[in-house]
Amino acid sequence: MTDTHKKSAAVWFESLRDSICATFEAIESEYCHAQLVDIEPRRFIRKSWERTDQVTGQAGGGGEMSTLKGRIFEKVGVNISTVYGSFAPEFAKSMPGAEHDPRFFATGISVVAHMRSPLVPAVHMNTRYIATTQDWFGGGADLNPVFPNPDDTQDFLIALKTACDAHGLAYFPKYKTWCDEYFYVPHRNRARGAGGIFYDHHNSGHWQNDFAFTQDVGKAFLDIYPKLVKRHVNEPWTSEERHAQLLYRGLYAEFNLLYDRGTTFGLKTGGNVEAILMSLPPEARWD
Amino acid sequence: MTDTHKKSAAVWFESLRDSICATFEAIESEYCHAQLVDIEPRRFIRKSWERTDQVTGQAGGGGEMSTLKGRIFEKVGVNISTVYGSFAPEFAKSMPGAEHDPRFFATGISVVAHMRSPLVPAVHMNTRYIATTQDWFGGGADLNPVFPNPDDTQDFLIALKTACDAHGLAYFPKYKTWCDEYFYVPHRNRARGAGGIFYDHHNSGHWQNDFAFTQDVGKAFLDIYPKLVKRHVNEPWTSEERHAQLLYRGLYAEFNLLYDRGTTFGLKTGGNVEAILMSLPPEARWD
Repeated sequence: MTDTHKKSAAVWFESLRDSICATFEAIESEYCHAQLVDIEPRRFIRKSWERTDQVTGQAGGGGEMSTLKGRIFEKVGVNISTVYGSFAPEFAKSMPGAEHDPRFFATGISVVAHMRSPLVPAVHMNTRYIATTQDWFGGGADLNPVFPNPDDTQDFLIALKTACDAHGLAYFPKYKTWCDEYFYVPHRNRARGAGGIFYDHHNSGHWQNDFAFTQDVGKAFLDIYPKLVKRHVNEPWTSEERHAQLLYRGLYAEFNLLYDRGTTFGLKTGGNVEAILMSLPPEARWD
Repeated sequence: MTDTHKKSAAVWFESLRDSICATFEAIESEYCHAQLVDIEPRRFIRKSWERTDQVTGQAGGGGEMSTLKGRIFEKVGVNISTVYGSFAPEFAKSMPGAEHDPRFFATGISVVAHMRSPLVPAVHMNTRYIATTQDWFGGGADLNPVFPNPDDTQDFLIALKTACDAHGLAYFPKYKTWCDEYFYVPHRNRARGAGGIFYDHHNSGHWQNDFAFTQDVGKAFLDIYPKLVKRHVNEPWTSEERHAQLLYRGLYAEFNLLYDRGTTFGLKTGGNVEAILMSLPPEARWD
């Protein structure tokens, strides 16, 4: 990897963040619903944070959180970060290319949207570029409906498949299966969501192709998710459906706190707590 | 340990369960409040479960959940269980006395009360007796107020100190410190609750004394917690206080899912999911 690669990836994630926030804000201001009329539409609020590397004690980059708590989007976070420094010795062992040189660079975007309507699926999207003595892309996107809708699931998966297929026909089957496996909640004996793709350590040997693939995943998300929101945003819902949504969010919180590697690693190693916990639902129930 | 010890401990936990449920039900039916008048008082519902030992494939005991979701008690669970079998090899290594003989017996009670009023502290109490080739008692009780009240905290701690002091003057300082350490939430840089006691591997060499100590912890809880409930149950609260309670419960859920050894061990090794997750709050927020 080169400094140009790092810079290009970071610039892309920032630009994708801007596009996602603009698109979500447009939906937030343009759509309403009888059940939402008492709630003001809101805009994203940005908050930046800086990081001190735990190992070097030096400046270690930072990030920017964009959060909107509004009418259509009950709570949505669009976080970007670009961080660098040295992995702690224990962690370095588990990271490719860091066994003998713990220095790293990581840049990425993370999106989690929890919607007011139980009929509009929640969503998660995260892509990142990581460089040690090796480098790779990782990430994915997964749909998290309370009531899975076959058309939504299919359209979401087709969008991701199209992004995958443009770069390698083996990608979609592999990364869809990885998503199903990763977002499984064993103690509930069920998946967290309706599916998507999950990939990591993605390095085909062609940086530009891999970068284009990760860009296409972001673009596919930016295209399909707003369509699914608009498809269901005007549908009325019942208090029973809202209740089911709050219980589903309990499952979502359980997954993130018990199993999600990013959450547990971040919280246990001094990451930015507010940015990490952005993923947790605004309201959840365990009856 | 002898079969008489195991039987005596199990009988005690069952009897303590009956006393706690009766006391809580009396509060639930006798107290009300202008802000609660629309909610019906409720009674405990009991549900038993049986366990198949993962290693032996044989019957491995079971338990009984008692749950009340009511007016004063928004959600309270009083669970007892008596289980036996063989620890999985990996787990046996970490359990005293099970290194060379993985057979075990465990009996205990677990109580978690999440209250409607944000001015009435939530509470957690759990005591247990475990036998491998060694045997010991463990457990504790801790107060979980949204708004810590120095009088409540002091009265709660004095009750537990009295129970401790009757059996050993070293117990309270040691077990209070252990509680403070155990219920610390590092990523929030704060304690989960206002304090209490936590003990484990408690074996003084005098089984009857240790059993009496654990009984006294249960009795102290049964005496002091209802007093604290009655002290605050008639106080009106604001929507801001309720909101603070829901955020506090987010912290409570984070602790249980990220750090609590019982929860994570139980969920990851095929315990009774419903009984384990009884501890999670009925409603929580992450703003």
